[in-house]
Amino acid sequence: MEREHLSRRFDTDLNEIREKLLEMGGKVEVMIANAMQSLVERDTGLAERTIDFDHEINQLEMEIDEKCLEVLARRQPAARDLRFITLALKIVTDLERIGDQCANIAKRAKELNKEPALKPYIDLPRMAQAASKMVQEALDAFVRGDDALAIKVCGDDQAVDDLNEQIQRELLTFMLGDPTTISRAIKINHVSKCLERIADHATNVAEMVIFMVKGKDIRHTIA
Amino acid sequence: MEREHLSRRFDTDLNEIREKLLEMGGKVEVMIANAMQSLVERDTGLAERTIDFDHEINQLEMEIDEKCLEVLARRQPAARDLRFITLALKIVTDLERIGDQCANIAKRAKELNKEPALKPYIDLPRMAQAASKMVQEALDAFVRGDDALAIKVCGDDQAVDDLNEQIQRELLTFMLGDPTTISRAIKINHVSKCLERIADHATNVAEMVIFMVKGKDIRHTIA
Repeated sequence: MEREHLSRRFDTDLNEIREKLLEMGGKVEVMIANAMQSLVERDTGLAERTIDFDHEINQLEMEIDEKCLEVLARRQPAARDLRFITLALKIVTDLERIGDQCANIAKRAKELNKEPALKPYIDLPRMAQAASKMVQEALDAFVRGDDALAIKVCGDDQAVDDLNEQIQRELLTFMLGDPTTISRAIKINHVSKCLERIADHATNVAEMVIFMVKGKDIRHTIA
Repeated sequence: MEREHLSRRFDTDLNEIREKLLEMGGKVEVMIANAMQSLVERDTGLAERTIDFDHEINQLEMEIDEKCLEVLARRQPAARDLRFITLALKIVTDLERIGDQCANIAKRAKELNKEPALKPYIDLPRMAQAASKMVQEALDAFVRGDDALAIKVCGDDQAVDDLNEQIQRELLTFMLGDPTTISRAIKINHVSKCLERIADHATNVAEMVIFMVKGKDIRHTIA
């Protein structure tokens, strides 16, 4: 009876970590969308709100870290549960850094919104959508323990890398054709790199999920 | 007697984690130095060896992760020891990603070595030295539990950011003056960004050390 009681409390703890991580993931996705909207629609107010919003992400990081430590100390979990909690600790760091990248995009948006548009943004929003979907699916894979989904996320990273390369080549053409575009092109290039880093964080999360599910480390064997 | 025996074994476990982390830190520092040397001395063979060396860093990451999980499961540490191990798990991820950045620098070096030098590298090696020192001091702060040193590391990040800005401005001048330099300038800019990311990882480690020592989270209160 006592054991059952304890086990229920432990399940509640794990669910709380799971839900807080999903909440944090949801907020990070909103942040990606808002950072991109502030750029595409030249909405400097939204860019500023996105930069401020990073505090909420940071707050969630600290809450989840504390909760994980508390559960490790009080419940002394083993095997699968231990792996789940230690990976939650690592994943939360990736989510927080995705928030940092969104704030960086919003900062570049504020600067770019002061100058004439170089060209309509077409590939960057596509890249952002792909990266955001990777973040969402990596987290889903984590909470469901779904290694097939995690493997898919790792594969999707290539498409984002390709878009980044394509954007860089296009910006190079602009810069070569008209040196007055260089300063803006560098800022747009920075946004593209931020999105690439967001996709890298999602890939890192997915690799760790595969590690959790398989119980062995394939992080450095996936090409 | 039994308890003392257990406690000694536990100390041995913690020491092993500590030593492996320092070993990994040492290898990462060598990797930073080699990546930069391959660029400055236009040594493509060294660049290739640096890219290959990343496997050793990845191997160490997996070993330390496994050791931490084993200690958490077998010894069920509490309080300070628990914090130490969970932070080791996070720090090892930062070290691994510093290795990735070094491999990225070496890849750019391989490309840049095929073209005429744009100019002698002066600021990049200074930036690399500063970033490498930050990595070393952040790890020292971790193993010694030295929050004063960790706070210093967080402050040093500004100097690296300033160097990055300065390099970007200088490269912009080159690109504006002579568009044929753009392709090389973008690659050099990428190296500068990699070094900035290495310093960011060191700062992340240092912030986590302050968290460990103080027992409360100041990560998101340091300006």
